[in-house]
Amino acid sequence: MQLLEERIKADGRVLGDSVLKVDNFLTHQVDYKLMKEIGKQFAETFADAGITKVVTIEASGIAPAVYVAEALDVPMIFAKKSKNITMNEELLTAEVYSFTKQITSTVSISRKFLSPDDKVLIIDDFLANGQAALGLIKIIKEVGADIEGVGIVIEKSFQDGRKSLEDAGYKVVSLARVAKFEDGQVVFAQADA
Amino acid sequence: MQLLEERIKADGRVLGDSVLKVDNFLTHQVDYKLMKEIGKQFAETFADAGITKVVTIEASGIAPAVYVAEALDVPMIFAKKSKNITMNEELLTAEVYSFTKQITSTVSISRKFLSPDDKVLIIDDFLANGQAALGLIKIIKEVGADIEGVGIVIEKSFQDGRKSLEDAGYKVVSLARVAKFEDGQVVFAQADA
Repeated sequence: MQLLEERIKADGRVLGDSVLKVDNFLTHQVDYKLMKEIGKQFAETFADAGITKVVTIEASGIAPAVYVAEALDVPMIFAKKSKNITMNEELLTAEVYSFTKQITSTVSISRKFLSPDDKVLIIDDFLANGQAALGLIKIIKEVGADIEGVGIVIEKSFQDGRKSLEDAGYKVVSLARVAKFEDGQVVFAQADA
Repeated sequence: MQLLEERIKADGRVLGDSVLKVDNFLTHQVDYKLMKEIGKQFAETFADAGITKVVTIEASGIAPAVYVAEALDVPMIFAKKSKNITMNEELLTAEVYSFTKQITSTVSISRKFLSPDDKVLIIDDFLANGQAALGLIKIIKEVGADIEGVGIVIEKSFQDGRKSLEDAGYKVVSLARVAKFEDGQVVFAQADA
């Protein structure tokens, strides 16, 4: 997605070897216009998939995901992230390890919001090691719903998240793919849409 | 806001004396159509206030706030909530005590996203004791920006958040005001918009 790559070039900040800060338009301050375009792009890509629910994880996934939901005219569900959660039958949960923060969180979705008839599109702001998406996949499979794909705003293609998801049989669509950082600049790989 | 009150009556669940669950359209599953209407309503109410930024707190505030930002054509910033945050000069922070969860969190916003020229509209999903909004106000005042008002989706009018904010001199606009719960049903007070 050219608009997104241009925005990353203009406003993203490379920190060290593996961190890309996009807090001025995605992860802290949010540019609704860009979110709207992102929503339209994913909706176009998954137009024929019969999506019934968009699922993301709090917090940075919410803004892009709600615009994907709008463009597809379906509800959006955001999974909750918590360090200590009271397990109960109403909650679907998965453990997610964050390599960046080096903590394990429990992500959860209320069982009542998913059914075996659902066709789910997972949306997240970043794909690095794929742990968050794999956690959501585990939850969604537990109710027997179909997962039509994983839509990512920014993929770090030098980490193994995409491979993990594709090896598990899931379609990954990333709007920007960061191949590497060179002299503090982002070098993109060919995006999926 | 009649549409919102009707939705709360239809889909909200009263738990015990003081809890109203609206997880099927606002706090977990999100109805983008309702969020869009909420955005338009706040934008109309604050049309003449010259708002330059919408500020909320992760996570449930994000969906309504981004649609308010869209309707006002300004950026949205969501404050981060964390139990242990590394303080630094770039971060504006405030301690926020949650009566529900009985924990103190630190909310933070990067200083670079606010300036003394900003006219801020604070948006949140719920107003109970007002601690979250007061935390945001402290942060925003620290940079010298103006706070034009606090826009709340659902106010629990039987708690003292509104009084705290009004006593401190801030305009509060709540789209639904819950006066009390009676036999498991919500009784509304007159909403502000």
